[in-house]
Amino acid sequence: MSNRQVRLATRPVGRIDDNTWSITSEPVPEPGAGEFVVKIDYVSVDPAMRGWLDDVRSYVPPVAIGAVMRAHAVGRVHASRNDRFPAGTPVSGLFGACEYALSDGSDVTVVDLDLAPGPTWLGALGFPGMTAYFGLLDVGRLRPGDTVLISGAAGAVGSIAGQIAKLLGCRVIGIAGGPEKCAWLTDELGFDAAIDYRAGSIGRALRAAAPKGIDVFFDNVGGDILNSALAQLRTHARVVICGAISGYNATEPQPGPSRYLSLLVNRASMAGLIVFDYADRFPEAQAALSNWIRRGDLITREQVRSGGIEAFGDTLNMLFDGANTGKLVLEV
Amino acid sequence: MSNRQVRLATRPVGRIDDNTWSITSEPVPEPGAGEFVVKIDYVSVDPAMRGWLDDVRSYVPPVAIGAVMRAHAVGRVHASRNDRFPAGTPVSGLFGACEYALSDGSDVTVVDLDLAPGPTWLGALGFPGMTAYFGLLDVGRLRPGDTVLISGAAGAVGSIAGQIAKLLGCRVIGIAGGPEKCAWLTDELGFDAAIDYRAGSIGRALRAAAPKGIDVFFDNVGGDILNSALAQLRTHARVVICGAISGYNATEPQPGPSRYLSLLVNRASMAGLIVFDYADRFPEAQAALSNWIRRGDLITREQVRSGGIEAFGDTLNMLFDGANTGKLVLEV
Repeated sequence: MSNRQVRLATRPVGRIDDNTWSITSEPVPEPGAGEFVVKIDYVSVDPAMRGWLDDVRSYVPPVAIGAVMRAHAVGRVHASRNDRFPAGTPVSGLFGACEYALSDGSDVTVVDLDLAPGPTWLGALGFPGMTAYFGLLDVGRLRPGDTVLISGAAGAVGSIAGQIAKLLGCRVIGIAGGPEKCAWLTDELGFDAAIDYRAGSIGRALRAAAPKGIDVFFDNVGGDILNSALAQLRTHARVVICGAISGYNATEPQPGPSRYLSLLVNRASMAGLIVFDYADRFPEAQAALSNWIRRGDLITREQVRSGGIEAFGDTLNMLFDGANTGKLVLEV
Repeated sequence: MSNRQVRLATRPVGRIDDNTWSITSEPVPEPGAGEFVVKIDYVSVDPAMRGWLDDVRSYVPPVAIGAVMRAHAVGRVHASRNDRFPAGTPVSGLFGACEYALSDGSDVTVVDLDLAPGPTWLGALGFPGMTAYFGLLDVGRLRPGDTVLISGAAGAVGSIAGQIAKLLGCRVIGIAGGPEKCAWLTDELGFDAAIDYRAGSIGRALRAAAPKGIDVFFDNVGGDILNSALAQLRTHARVVICGAISGYNATEPQPGPSRYLSLLVNRASMAGLIVFDYADRFPEAQAALSNWIRRGDLITREQVRSGGIEAFGDTLNMLFDGANTGKLVLEV
């Protein structure tokens, strides 16, 4: 019985390709005292992963060359010498892109598969859901009645963020790529409006959808979308910088938001968010999100890609092609 | 007896020149019931004035073509039919760039010339002082021990902001143009370090002056200086956007701060400031600044330009040439 793993072979310049990864195989580890081995069922595939591959100072160290790719995953305890995590326990954690992972239990969460299936624990009930919740409520200081704009709105974080804002009494506009995603936002998730960024001027569409301006902009995309949104801020608006996927594969420095002085004119603020900072408060968010899911008020959607560990690289690239709707997950 | 006034003749494209203004002359107005006329002694000359000339939506309407140029000024009540402001009262207000102004007393402040001379009431005890105070304490959430970076540090706002930060127990680094200004910051005002932005790489100088990074950046300049500062933020840093003088005369859109994702990585925030929002709290700031001035803890400096009303345009351009140290004021 072998454990296949996705390891970083070379640091990508621009888009990830086959040279980025090597697939290795080694024996399934044996747990030492206090340890257990998790058999991975689903690996999370996230835009932030692209940043973890670059050799720059950031909020986490870069993935080392030759190391197993850092990834959140969900699985079941396979063999255990840790009483808190007996064999069979469904768990989530930073297990990496692999088939089996050794753990001592730190930062591992027992997940409730009766409440939601494994992939949801990597989406709405995992870091994307936490990011949406704390990004809106804490960084964005969301208030009922706010007009909220969300970019990457059909993605893992954006689709949850928009629904939270609706549940809390806001008017919500989503930006996504293509008519299908936009229809999903308005027809299924209850967004008040959706803007297809591929269909024409974002600025014009934004002025039409939010003629009085935006109170909270939750940005996952950056680039032109950020700049267009800055032009449409209301007084005391809050811009939440969650990500900037439009520039993650760039090989040259990307232009900054030339309209940043809108922050001055509108006494607005722009602030970044790293979800790990909220670890102490995850139970609060998980309780709220679980309740909404139980009541049927929050629609969770995962796009589960098959193909096993070998498909990891191609699956990650789907994010940069806008090929996913909802949370992208790789089935191992 | 005539009242000469600086009026906006044409909206400038790029740098202000002689075509921008017309000097008009009309009889000194007579106060109606409840009104008074102020004889202006000093007119404030501020970077923000450049923005007031552009026909764009902003925090105040643009100055209309043909209107007297909007300006803060200090003078004495000359003729009065308002009991609250008898003749001889020293006052400050938004009187405009002119020799005599008619007022009904709204938003007019009686100034104490025993505490400080007229020009100081346009600087440390006027809007620049208020801007420095609320920018640091409210928007910047200054804390003792913070490392504070100030651009345009030898200017009206920056020179006060740096001294306030020192008085409140911070380490303060100023950025200014030229060795004389830098020497003034460190030798006279007590800044811990000064960076001459004309002398070489700002980024390198900043890494040397603040190797552990910046907690609060108070920005009056924008452009490359803002971008270099973003690269040196500490976790939870606050960037206060007070102005962006480096771009005010630009005829093309200026590049935005390409390193804005430093806000994400460092969970930092960037927020704009309009001092008029703090009008209710001006007494708090004026009390604090007055006390520091009385105790000799706050050095105020004004550069008073003579030449009367006709010199207004040239004086304003001095700001964009970096020709002033401290608060620039025109003597009427």
